Amino acid sequence: MATLKIPHPVPSAVEDAENLMKAFHGWGTDEKAVISILAHRDADQRKQIMVAYEELYKENLIKRLESEISGHFERAMYRWMFDPIEREVIFANVALKKSVDWIVIIELSCINSPDELLVIKKMYQNRYKLSLEEDVAFHTSGDFRKLLVGLVSTYRYRGEEINASLAQAEAKILHNLIKQKTFDHDEVIRILCTRSKAQLNATFNCYKDEQGTSITKSLSSASSSEFVSALRTAIRCIISPEKYYEKLLRRALNKGGIDEDSLTRVIIMRAEKDLQVIKELYQKRANMTLDHAVSKEASGDYKKFLLALIGN
Amino acid sequence: MATLKIPHPVPSAVEDAENLMKAFHGWGTDEKAVISILAHRDADQRKQIMVAYEELYKENLIKRLESEISGHFERAMYRWMFDPIEREVIFANVALKKSVDWIVIIELSCINSPDELLVIKKMYQNRYKLSLEEDVAFHTSGDFRKLLVGLVSTYRYRGEEINASLAQAEAKILHNLIKQKTFDHDEVIRILCTRSKAQLNATFNCYKDEQGTSITKSLSSASSSEFVSALRTAIRCIISPEKYYEKLLRRALNKGGIDEDSLTRVIIMRAEKDLQVIKELYQKRANMTLDHAVSKEASGDYKKFLLALIGN
Repeated sequence: MATLKIPHPVPSAVEDAENLMKAFHGWGTDEKAVISILAHRDADQRKQIMVAYEELYKENLIKRLESEISGHFERAMYRWMFDPIEREVIFANVALKKSVDWIVIIELSCINSPDELLVIKKMYQNRYKLSLEEDVAFHTSGDFRKLLVGLVSTYRYRGEEINASLAQAEAKILHNLIKQKTFDHDEVIRILCTRSKAQLNATFNCYKDEQGTSITKSLSSASSSEFVSALRTAIRCIISPEKYYEKLLRRALNKGGIDEDSLTRVIIMRAEKDLQVIKELYQKRANMTLDHAVSKEASGDYKKFLLALIGN
Repeated sequence: MATLKIPHPVPSAVEDAENLMKAFHGWGTDEKAVISILAHRDADQRKQIMVAYEELYKENLIKRLESEISGHFERAMYRWMFDPIEREVIFANVALKKSVDWIVIIELSCINSPDELLVIKKMYQNRYKLSLEEDVAFHTSGDFRKLLVGLVSTYRYRGEEINASLAQAEAKILHNLIKQKTFDHDEVIRILCTRSKAQLNATFNCYKDEQGTSITKSLSSASSSEFVSALRTAIRCIISPEKYYEKLLRRALNKGGIDEDSLTRVIIMRAEKDLQVIKELYQKRANMTLDHAVSKEASGDYKKFLLALIGN
């Protein structure tokens, strides 16, 4: 369930564009007005506002926003204005520049459904004139390449059927390899990168039943290497995107100084999808509402924008 | 260009089904009549005939054919009767049983376009309730796994744009690795499995220009291992499916005793697509027509069936 709140009736795209222009005019920007419009429109409506704004004023709304607002607020608004698939495509491409940000690639490949990933890959090709696979492979090496290329390449089986004896056998393979600390073994990569999400969840459940501890806990007590951390991220995204995001929020808000990038990413990417579920999980685990935590840790227009997106 | 010849006007599916039943009745089967119908109908028409036959006689046409005809003719007819995509799906699955027939997997992944491969993968999932990727990964190991999983997984870029300096750089990487005989190097797998076909063709052209010999010739003089043979097969399928098939036909017809499996596979799979081009290439290289070679090497109803499919 989404947290995004859209007024009924919603103003026309032309009205919204005109009101945005009013907010930009005069002494300073009326950030409150900007938030009251853009934080309460869905992706389609935002797209229509951008088109209407461009037609009315012959300028690009995103560029205008960049010149009107700044800091964390600007960066969050910039992300928010993209079409959700385009946003994933662009941030995957950014993640592959310089030192590869593997978290973005793992989230993209393990949280999206096989068909959503396919749509992202098609748009990636249209935009960059090469495949996501070749870009990931080109910018990585060694174990990370094996893992990341495997994760983005496979068109996983989409069905819910599972093979229970296979789950048991593969849970045993994973346990033995973790025990031997051969995390980069071809079999780890094969299982994680090719099995369906339903089958992997069955395997991870078998692992927990037989070993009395979860595979992610086994991994974290076996090693603190970056590669193992990547394996754990992939597994957590496959088991439950909502729990994964909830934990990311707790960490982002719990650093004595927020992790702006993660906080923005989770809220922007999930506000139109399942942020309500993530909020409820957060409240249980953190013993406070997400609204309260954001109010406490964030500030200024950035805070107001995030609070609007999380349904405050 | 296809070699399949369809009469105009084509009889209705019901007439065809009735004439097939007539051919099955009486003393022995009238194979000539069976060939005159089924070797001159396209995939859609064959499907309609199967439906009409089932409705009229409450029996499966393919099963009836299996009981009426035998040997090479039966095996070729069995393959022919499938829908072309279903045929690739079923034979990929067969190729993964017991000792993996890597040639079928390489042809499937390197000859089909990225979008055709995707359709095959979707049908594979619907039919077998798992992904082609996980089946290939499960049944292979070591270098073959790396290569075959890479080839079936990637959704290659479909565009024709190439990056000339990248082609030069990657041709050099490939040359150095072949010189060092490290054919299983991650970079060989990366380049071959992730780059677009257009980009790979540019890379192979650079290789030839700089080294004065083709990459496939370099590979075959460097090693005769099965893995290098698989690399060469993939490269040849990417460079030119038609030339690849033409050579396969020459080998299949040149063994002093035909290679029935390859001969049938090429003719059945290409008769509705590009067998005319392959035939013309064959005539140039073998100094005889494909019709003549098939007449000389094959026999009986099998020969008649193949000759009908190649447009004799």
